[in-house]
Amino acid sequence: MLIYKIPLACSDDQGMSVLIKNCDWIVTQNPSREVLRNCSVRVEGTKITEIGNLHGDAEYVIDGSRKILLPGLVNTHTHLSMTLMRGFADDMRLQEWLETKIWPLEQKLTGDICYHGALLGCLEMIRTGTTCFMDMYFFLKDVARAVEKAGLRAILSHAMIDLFDSKRSESQRRITQEALDFIKSLQSSRIGFAMGPHAPYTCSEESLLWSKEVAERERVPIHTHIAETRHEQAQFEKEKGMSEVEYLAKIGFLSPRLVAVHSVFLTGKDVELYARNQVKVSHCPVSNMKLAGGGVAPLSEMFAQHVNVSLGTDGAASNNCLDMFDTMKFCALEAKAHYWDPTVLPAQQVLDLATIEGARALGLEKKVGSIEVGKEADLILVDLKSPNLVPIHGRSTVVSDLVYATKGMNVDSTIVQGKPLMINRNLLTLDEDKVMEEASSAALMLTG
Amino acid sequence: MLIYKIPLACSDDQGMSVLIKNCDWIVTQNPSREVLRNCSVRVEGTKITEIGNLHGDAEYVIDGSRKILLPGLVNTHTHLSMTLMRGFADDMRLQEWLETKIWPLEQKLTGDICYHGALLGCLEMIRTGTTCFMDMYFFLKDVARAVEKAGLRAILSHAMIDLFDSKRSESQRRITQEALDFIKSLQSSRIGFAMGPHAPYTCSEESLLWSKEVAERERVPIHTHIAETRHEQAQFEKEKGMSEVEYLAKIGFLSPRLVAVHSVFLTGKDVELYARNQVKVSHCPVSNMKLAGGGVAPLSEMFAQHVNVSLGTDGAASNNCLDMFDTMKFCALEAKAHYWDPTVLPAQQVLDLATIEGARALGLEKKVGSIEVGKEADLILVDLKSPNLVPIHGRSTVVSDLVYATKGMNVDSTIVQGKPLMINRNLLTLDEDKVMEEASSAALMLTG
Repeated sequence: MLIYKIPLACSDDQGMSVLIKNCDWIVTQNPSREVLRNCSVRVEGTKITEIGNLHGDAEYVIDGSRKILLPGLVNTHTHLSMTLMRGFADDMRLQEWLETKIWPLEQKLTGDICYHGALLGCLEMIRTGTTCFMDMYFFLKDVARAVEKAGLRAILSHAMIDLFDSKRSESQRRITQEALDFIKSLQSSRIGFAMGPHAPYTCSEESLLWSKEVAERERVPIHTHIAETRHEQAQFEKEKGMSEVEYLAKIGFLSPRLVAVHSVFLTGKDVELYARNQVKVSHCPVSNMKLAGGGVAPLSEMFAQHVNVSLGTDGAASNNCLDMFDTMKFCALEAKAHYWDPTVLPAQQVLDLATIEGARALGLEKKVGSIEVGKEADLILVDLKSPNLVPIHGRSTVVSDLVYATKGMNVDSTIVQGKPLMINRNLLTLDEDKVMEEASSAALMLTG
Repeated sequence: MLIYKIPLACSDDQGMSVLIKNCDWIVTQNPSREVLRNCSVRVEGTKITEIGNLHGDAEYVIDGSRKILLPGLVNTHTHLSMTLMRGFADDMRLQEWLETKIWPLEQKLTGDICYHGALLGCLEMIRTGTTCFMDMYFFLKDVARAVEKAGLRAILSHAMIDLFDSKRSESQRRITQEALDFIKSLQSSRIGFAMGPHAPYTCSEESLLWSKEVAERERVPIHTHIAETRHEQAQFEKEKGMSEVEYLAKIGFLSPRLVAVHSVFLTGKDVELYARNQVKVSHCPVSNMKLAGGGVAPLSEMFAQHVNVSLGTDGAASNNCLDMFDTMKFCALEAKAHYWDPTVLPAQQVLDLATIEGARALGLEKKVGSIEVGKEADLILVDLKSPNLVPIHGRSTVVSDLVYATKGMNVDSTIVQGKPLMINRNLLTLDEDKVMEEASSAALMLTG
């Protein structure tokens, strides 16, 4: 790979011109899903300005030969700081896992611990080709600090949990409002905000509806866990005589701003309610399979009703990685196996969920999610010089190769808003050893 | 990493002493499943001679700090040369896939094409930590040539398909006999033979029983696809009024030498027949999910009856990679999701399937599959200097980290029979660029 100029670190000045030259393949994800052969992309400042057979120079030239250029992947559900709990407790039942392992650790969280966990998560995402994500956790300012440093694009939310206690609801609203004000004060074009009422079984109606009201006013997404497990769904049936989604429809919580995370245990009527209210779904197959809450998300039924579906990894504690290539493969294979039909969730559709549909879920579809002139340059390069990516049979199979054969570790370059974060596996915004060392120390403060 | 001496290429002289020093963790997979901290392993010639707090020197010293040492993974079902068809045709129904895509390509196979495909497969396995595998395909001598060059351990079988034609049965027996004689003539301690009657729906009773007879005489495994799909099972019910396994029991084909690949669509009675006849199962979750032949292999039922289960990737055309870490994660998560129980297939059990149980399936459990003094040194090192492997919480979570968070690409060293094939990501037996280039050319001869 030829790189004519590598800045030692990226400046915040986004006026640089970047030329990604002679890519073997460009998987554009544009409306006609064009796959281009031997083409180049020019970026000026934060945006893509030209795509084609380009000549001339740029301040920063990246050789794309023997590589696939594609839009950066969009992960619509993370708990970034939970990278620190990766592998801490596996093979356990959800409730026991939460009550005896995760929640006790979370009592010990501090802003600094969350910062180091979030930075580790950002590092893993840069390395594995995710350029944009939606997070939900605590100590949001510290998570934002990590995202800012790493250079990724993110929508951050504070996990609001009131446990039906009005005093707690009040304090959670205050924290949420402060977080919102903080994000607004950043005036960042990369870091946005979402309301984060955790789940209908941890939040009062009051908190849910307040979240929706603020989301409408501020024009931001709502990020909520819904219908993750059979147990949860059964509790709603027992206590309210209706499904969780029916309850949410009844109180008026459903909305086009809502990204309903998990949405596994749904009835046909629930899917209809989603469709009618234009609810978005963040599907997290790896976490759902690993925690085994029961059932399989009814993807075909959602697609039949044109529900927007995108993909999330969930936190590293229940995955145990943040690799969206892993999640794409699990998404495709789980659905095929579930429906006894190998034609379900073909590669192109799965790649859509991880790119343009993810952008749509976050209200960013005009900015990112595809490689088109005028869009922001959130791009990744997959290095084809790896045995698992040989052979490439041609234009019609490249997307398949991305979904079924590519690993996150095949990504060798990651660019966000025109700014290179990793080129040829060299990190430009983060000191990898330092991030991993400090994260290990932070983890020890939690578990030690 | 410190390597005091790296031979430019590996000699066939297996008299070298190797010291793998100060490994952060050694996951021994010995009978008590010990995980050792800060220990070393000494190898003299082909065998492990010491494990512990070792001092002194060796001809070849490998620094194991910030690494996990574990037994090389054992892949009990591959079609190695099919790496050339990786991604060639995905998202299709099995029969259509075979008839319109795979079989027509296979008409064009030659020994050289198979050699280049097999070499690419060996390269991918070395890179992702597989040290031993059982293969079934055509042009076995050429596959053996590739395995010999790469330095891996393998059991090779010729795919016998007679389509119930007695003339064809005869010629297939001849080819099989020649392949057997060839492998015997190699007198290799690394490359063995298995009988490979393809499947009960492609082989006559005569061919099946002949295979069993030869296997008994030669004391080698039998490698056969059984009960892969719902369709196949339904055909047996229709034509013979019994399940496929019942038919095989009736004709006397079941045996402790049989590695029954797939074994997805089984009845409770079938599992009992397996147990009674000590049949071994090669479970291929990725391929089964991707081809979506229906159902999920009844693993819990097999374990309850003490059936030996191991793991296979299947060919790259239906996976689309040969990464056993990928297969371990799919195995665990598919079973958890299927049984609605996250405690099913815990990490330790999954790692067992991919190591010692794989060795047992191939009759090699006294030679490989664990790190014990006296066993052959088939070893791999996982590099912990990667964000997806931070933090490591301690002895009790290392196995979990291997199964849920580790990627094949985290493997940085692979040793077979005491002979280093890859050290610190440098390949010692294969020229990676050349292997990939020649495989691409070979693929073009098939598809072009």
